[in-house]
Amino acid sequence: MTEDCLAVFSPSGLRGRFAQGTTLLDAARRLGVDLDSVCGGRGICGRCQVTIEEGSFPKLGIDSRGDHVSAWNDVEGRYAERRGALPDGRRLGCQAALCGDVAIDVPADSQVHRQVVRKRAATHPIAVDPLIHLHYVDVAQPDMHDPASDFRRLCDALAAQWGLTDIHADLAVLRGLQTVLRQGAWNVTVAVRNRRDIVAIWPGLRAQAHGLAVDIGSTTIAAHLCDLVTGDVVASAGVMNPQIRMGEDLMSRVSFVMMNPGGERALTESVRAALRGLIGDVTRDAGLVPADVLEMTVVGNPIMHHLFLGLDPTELGGAPFALTIDAGFELRAREAELDIAPGGFVYLLPCIAGHVGADTAGVVLSEGPHLRDEITLLVDVGTNAELVLGNRSRLLACSSPTGPAFEGAQISCGQRAAPGAIERLRIDRETFEPRFQVIGCASWSDDPAFADTGVTGICGSGIIEAIAEMFLAGLLTSDGVIDGAQAARTPRIVADGRTFSYVISEATPRLVITQSDVRAIQLAKGALYAGARLLMDRYGVASPDRITLAGAFGSHIDVAYAMVLGLIPDCDLAKVSAAGNAAGTGARIALLNAAARVEIEALVRRIEKIETAIEPEFQRHFIDAMAIPHKTDPFARLRAVMRLPPAPDEDAIAAGRRGRRRR
Amino acid sequence: MTEDCLAVFSPSGLRGRFAQGTTLLDAARRLGVDLDSVCGGRGICGRCQVTIEEGSFPKLGIDSRGDHVSAWNDVEGRYAERRGALPDGRRLGCQAALCGDVAIDVPADSQVHRQVVRKRAATHPIAVDPLIHLHYVDVAQPDMHDPASDFRRLCDALAAQWGLTDIHADLAVLRGLQTVLRQGAWNVTVAVRNRRDIVAIWPGLRAQAHGLAVDIGSTTIAAHLCDLVTGDVVASAGVMNPQIRMGEDLMSRVSFVMMNPGGERALTESVRAALRGLIGDVTRDAGLVPADVLEMTVVGNPIMHHLFLGLDPTELGGAPFALTIDAGFELRAREAELDIAPGGFVYLLPCIAGHVGADTAGVVLSEGPHLRDEITLLVDVGTNAELVLGNRSRLLACSSPTGPAFEGAQISCGQRAAPGAIERLRIDRETFEPRFQVIGCASWSDDPAFADTGVTGICGSGIIEAIAEMFLAGLLTSDGVIDGAQAARTPRIVADGRTFSYVISEATPRLVITQSDVRAIQLAKGALYAGARLLMDRYGVASPDRITLAGAFGSHIDVAYAMVLGLIPDCDLAKVSAAGNAAGTGARIALLNAAARVEIEALVRRIEKIETAIEPEFQRHFIDAMAIPHKTDPFARLRAVMRLPPAPDEDAIAAGRRGRRRR
Repeated sequence: MTEDCLAVFSPSGLRGRFAQGTTLLDAARRLGVDLDSVCGGRGICGRCQVTIEEGSFPKLGIDSRGDHVSAWNDVEGRYAERRGALPDGRRLGCQAALCGDVAIDVPADSQVHRQVVRKRAATHPIAVDPLIHLHYVDVAQPDMHDPASDFRRLCDALAAQWGLTDIHADLAVLRGLQTVLRQGAWNVTVAVRNRRDIVAIWPGLRAQAHGLAVDIGSTTIAAHLCDLVTGDVVASAGVMNPQIRMGEDLMSRVSFVMMNPGGERALTESVRAALRGLIGDVTRDAGLVPADVLEMTVVGNPIMHHLFLGLDPTELGGAPFALTIDAGFELRAREAELDIAPGGFVYLLPCIAGHVGADTAGVVLSEGPHLRDEITLLVDVGTNAELVLGNRSRLLACSSPTGPAFEGAQISCGQRAAPGAIERLRIDRETFEPRFQVIGCASWSDDPAFADTGVTGICGSGIIEAIAEMFLAGLLTSDGVIDGAQAARTPRIVADGRTFSYVISEATPRLVITQSDVRAIQLAKGALYAGARLLMDRYGVASPDRITLAGAFGSHIDVAYAMVLGLIPDCDLAKVSAAGNAAGTGARIALLNAAARVEIEALVRRIEKIETAIEPEFQRHFIDAMAIPHKTDPFARLRAVMRLPPAPDEDAIAAGRRGRRRR
Repeated sequence: MTEDCLAVFSPSGLRGRFAQGTTLLDAARRLGVDLDSVCGGRGICGRCQVTIEEGSFPKLGIDSRGDHVSAWNDVEGRYAERRGALPDGRRLGCQAALCGDVAIDVPADSQVHRQVVRKRAATHPIAVDPLIHLHYVDVAQPDMHDPASDFRRLCDALAAQWGLTDIHADLAVLRGLQTVLRQGAWNVTVAVRNRRDIVAIWPGLRAQAHGLAVDIGSTTIAAHLCDLVTGDVVASAGVMNPQIRMGEDLMSRVSFVMMNPGGERALTESVRAALRGLIGDVTRDAGLVPADVLEMTVVGNPIMHHLFLGLDPTELGGAPFALTIDAGFELRAREAELDIAPGGFVYLLPCIAGHVGADTAGVVLSEGPHLRDEITLLVDVGTNAELVLGNRSRLLACSSPTGPAFEGAQISCGQRAAPGAIERLRIDRETFEPRFQVIGCASWSDDPAFADTGVTGICGSGIIEAIAEMFLAGLLTSDGVIDGAQAARTPRIVADGRTFSYVISEATPRLVITQSDVRAIQLAKGALYAGARLLMDRYGVASPDRITLAGAFGSHIDVAYAMVLGLIPDCDLAKVSAAGNAAGTGARIALLNAAARVEIEALVRRIEKIETAIEPEFQRHFIDAMAIPHKTDPFARLRAVMRLPPAPDEDAIAAGRRGRRRR
């Protein structure tokens, strides 16, 4: 055969000459063109659709007017009959054959490596290129003259029809093999992971593949069911982490294990039970069953990571905070007592250090500081704050012991971010009267529509705003003392033993900000700022170019108020952003893109880990950062942040702060 | 440093020059000398003991009189104190260092690759070279400045101290990691499988390693606990296969599954429970615990193989007898619900065909027909007979449907080989009186010491002898008819409807050989012979050079009688032998020698499988082989076998046989 037809594929630009009669799919494969196919060229999956460009393309050296590809055939006719007509001008690449020179367009939906909408670092899109691919095969029937097993004949088919030569199956997959082969009359679709492990087998053709990205937080567990073909999230669900009944915060769960030897079994079982529930929920929502989940990825802090795996977290409860394992880790889902696809795996992102877990690795993967020249500060606030600072040349990470004050814990009227919690608060500069918004109600408290709205407490972002507003209104000194002298001007400042409180509401429950609430926030924000400062010192920069706040707290907080209080270092406000559940996004990226796992595992190894607990500098920064706003140029920043003219009492405040420091 | 000391090791003859001060262990390793060490040169395991040859060795170019190695040191002193003095002239190779030219002998017990006593094919010894090796390591302690996980530091130690660079651990191993590292004060012994998977970790030094070889028969399950260092069997145990309550023979167990969908779960659970019991028994006998078993190997026929794995055997119950999997297969022991070492694996030898299982693969591995020029016929008689014929250039295998008659089933007074069963029987040529031996009693029945011995039935070998003796005594024609005319000469021949029986004993239970018993044995032996004939035809030989009878039946049967009856083809009697539990030996070889697994997996692929059920020739051979002795030159063989002069009635018998055939 002479190689007499030129085929030029767009958008890749790949080109080559082929014998007449070569199908477009074959030509694409031989050139390495990204053209999908599940059924392997049998004209039944419809994944290899292409458009033939009719016309003269002098630049390509092609004039394809006329019959340069074979005519519409019976296989295409049957496909259109069963699955609906192809879009205009489309052909099945496995059926249309070259008859002359031709230009062929591969539409986005026929490419294996589709790009997801979300982009990292603005310029680094994530391609959908999961570890799992579907392969339709025609398996030889058993023959008494050649008694090869069903599995061997399946392997032979995968080798001959898909070039997969090192196929493994575990017991759970083998158990259903004979039935599925016979149900499918020796035509089956095989989900193969990493060109090696069979994850699932279905009779006949199957073109759907799904995976689940999971973020195990100490408070909530979130799961996102993703289409492994399109990259879309098709269903999401969240649930409270049931471990809470064995300890509200992380350290109390570690204590639970220390007090109850073997207690990690109960903690592990409860989180796995919650995951089984979530898997049931999201698959039901999507019209699927749990066995349709082919792969899972998991992020979580080190203690959640260890407890999910059933590893005793005791060592993480005290110095030197030794992890059992920090590398990316994969296991069969059923080893974690999760019933997904019979041969399905769970992949856990790597942990960075004893306090900086796979959740932070997920944030890094999602936000991509290592892909930029600009220096990014990533802040993930939970019970502790995890911080990552750096750019493509260098990354540092640490954890700051903020405690749970930002989550509303250890605050007299604090509560979690839930309906009824104050999340926004303003104090009138003249009357000192507060107005606020609560979660679950769109109106402010001074709006008549607010009447009868139940108010139950103050969540993290509400406390931040309340304290910042008290400071801006002159009710709080920069040293964090509620000013008792103001009691003469407003009944909202009340004596409370030797200190004073600010009364937000006299209703039931009575809501106040006490002096010790202010101290708790000061400690938390001092720790957060000190961690950032420590990383900046180590990196050798005065301020980051960008700040990204990850997690629920980062989403709810008003960044301007965070700057007023000095939670985060100086930075152009336009460069401060909230990333939402970036850890969960990292899990989703690792689910959809196999290379991302290699990327984050290598990256985590080169992140420099700073242990704040043993850094004397940290203590110094911590003490310095207790003031409100903290020492570094507070007022210039304040004006910029609040877009306010200089306040009349600015000098007085500054004087007061200096005065107290001299005392 | 100059390379100024010559070291010559025996028995390998390896030699090289090394700097002064090089330890003998280091020198050995650099030369590739087979010198063991578990502790990696720390002087605590005592595995690297060597003998320094004192004297002048002109042929080696060595005169090692004087101080050519360093003096006995403190480490050796402490070793001797703790573990007992070294044998005379021995040194620890890791402590003794070169000071001059020296000849060093590595005694057999210091070699890694010791040879087991058992030899295959007379000239092919099996070296003890298991997949699992022990490695003692010194692990770095956790450090807050470098927060690598415990597992990473363990991997770093295995890489630096043993060159193991691709180490994996699964959850069950990781679960105990932190505790063991701290118990051992950062010194631990790691059992590593295939230079990759951690199977177990112990605090401190551990030099013992054990594995278990298992033969799952349809009637009995046998387990042999082996020392993976010496190759010795340290404990054995056997138990009835509890699946018997769900079906006496293989096909009735398949029927059980077909009648009770999901019933394979019960069969699988029962065999696994029996194995758990055996693991407990053999480890207790050896003063060990189940977790000390680091690896298991398993052989069994295809149905036992599938049921152990939890695979539905239904397809094996009918043509085309498709196996789910035939390749060698390994799985974590806990996947088979067996609690051995936390990361322990089970390896199943490959199956050859739907009727020829991993047990036959074990027989082949043990008997090594592929290592000889002579053509061997392997015969493994169970409910069916598996046959393998060939030599190093070609091997063929088939299964013959002998049915269970050879096991005493379907015989009127038949029973399994157990105490009380007649296993030997002679008939007086004049009086036709029988004398016999039963299992459990050394005396013959005509010995006064036999009195009061309970006789319960006849086992397979007893039936073979009874029928052969009836023929030799002239009570049975060569067509297999009990000769009623002889009733006139002896009361032991009695009418039984239209046919006759031979009465062995009138006691309770009354023991007789009926005409239908003879027919059952004729069918069984016809099938067995026809299978062998079919293989010989295919191979193109008239007779094998050697015959090896494997299994319990092969061990109990008197080979001469088997030849009288024509169970097996003509062969020099000196070349016919019983191999005992060769399948179990094959499992043991695969346990002790990693290369043997590769060998048998490759070999099984090139064995030509013959399916007797669809071979018309088989039917022809089967019919021809029904006669006693069968058609091919019976009398010459008979005389040779029995070392008898021509019998007076030989011509009459031959005439009778011919006469009946003419009828």
